Amino acid sequence: MRRMIKALVFDAYGTLYDVHSVKEACDSLFPEKGEAISAEWRKKQLEYFFQRQMMGRYRPFDKVTRDALRYACKAEGAKLTKENEDMLMEAYLELELFEEVRDVLGKLSDKQRVVFSNGSENMIGPLVSGSRIADDIDMVISADEIKQYKPAAAAYAHALDRLGIERNEVLFMSSNSWDIMGAASFGFHTAWINRGREQPETLDIQPDRAYTDLNGILEWI
Amino acid sequence: MRRMIKALVFDAYGTLYDVHSVKEACDSLFPEKGEAISAEWRKKQLEYFFQRQMMGRYRPFDKVTRDALRYACKAEGAKLTKENEDMLMEAYLELELFEEVRDVLGKLSDKQRVVFSNGSENMIGPLVSGSRIADDIDMVISADEIKQYKPAAAAYAHALDRLGIERNEVLFMSSNSWDIMGAASFGFHTAWINRGREQPETLDIQPDRAYTDLNGILEWI
Repeated sequence: MRRMIKALVFDAYGTLYDVHSVKEACDSLFPEKGEAISAEWRKKQLEYFFQRQMMGRYRPFDKVTRDALRYACKAEGAKLTKENEDMLMEAYLELELFEEVRDVLGKLSDKQRVVFSNGSENMIGPLVSGSRIADDIDMVISADEIKQYKPAAAAYAHALDRLGIERNEVLFMSSNSWDIMGAASFGFHTAWINRGREQPETLDIQPDRAYTDLNGILEWI
Repeated sequence: MRRMIKALVFDAYGTLYDVHSVKEACDSLFPEKGEAISAEWRKKQLEYFFQRQMMGRYRPFDKVTRDALRYACKAEGAKLTKENEDMLMEAYLELELFEEVRDVLGKLSDKQRVVFSNGSENMIGPLVSGSRIADDIDMVISADEIKQYKPAAAAYAHALDRLGIERNEVLFMSSNSWDIMGAASFGFHTAWINRGREQPETLDIQPDRAYTDLNGILEWI
């Protein structure tokens, strides 16, 4: 397996970076509401880009994320000023890495290491370059480059195009089961980084492997 | 407004029919787990057809509903035999109407009254024809006829094609906000039947009207 794989492609939000690390920024503005706002924010963000992809009304991830933040704050009764909104959006550029990420990436330096995200360049760019793995990442691909969100097949096709290799030379990793399904459906090798220890989907598509964090990859490939 | 509208188009699941009326059938098989199974079942059903639409892996609604039921039972620790699975799937053909539906439809008999659902014909057909509004419904349209789920624009375009009228002659009603957004985005007049009294979406598309049940329609048109 290790020999066949040329590119290790990682989803960003929820996979390398903990989206719920915005909780503290939320808490600092809205005491005791941080956890609820953070959870609702992520939930709506996913809903909104899924809906937009289905409706054919693409809007970049930063805009969708902002729409979702407004919804979440309203839902939790938190009055959001323009200033606070900008501050929370900036917190999204400084998400924390999951604990093992840097170490695992360091051990895989013989492969091309790629981030492939739905995040628009103005979000995913600063996030990666400002984090401690900047030097471990060889390429950042945004679905925004073709304005089609994962898990649309077109998004994975775009990533493959950027990589310039065959689809069975890609190992794709994501904590988001919908992302893994999309990648597996497209024909990538897949490892579901099941950080939430969720139950496997009862679908006719399945990941090749499932691990609770990225360390599992080191054993496989 | 009343004069302009030629067809009153209703979503089925959650709008005319209460999807959570399967709760009792679930409870009869899995005591005290009915509510949780019913909630998870609907949640996964939505997730699965959204994902499939995005991935371009269409599967008919009965199959998706069955996949979701399996997930929900597993999640709630309810062991599902083939026999019980079939029994619960049949419960989906006998969902209860919301209280006001029959009365409201009766008062709108000067318009074409249409059901437009993601349900495949083998689900939506028996549901409508076996319910007390069978005589009030002039046409049933299934998104399965073109194998594209709402809220894809293609699904609303198909409904319009079947109706043979102009899009501004359609009033579309759904309790599902994603469905209302899809219909509004396509250019139908829309009324969000917000049965769950949910907060309005923070999106650049909005329904023309929002009511907590179908009675509101009688005041508007």
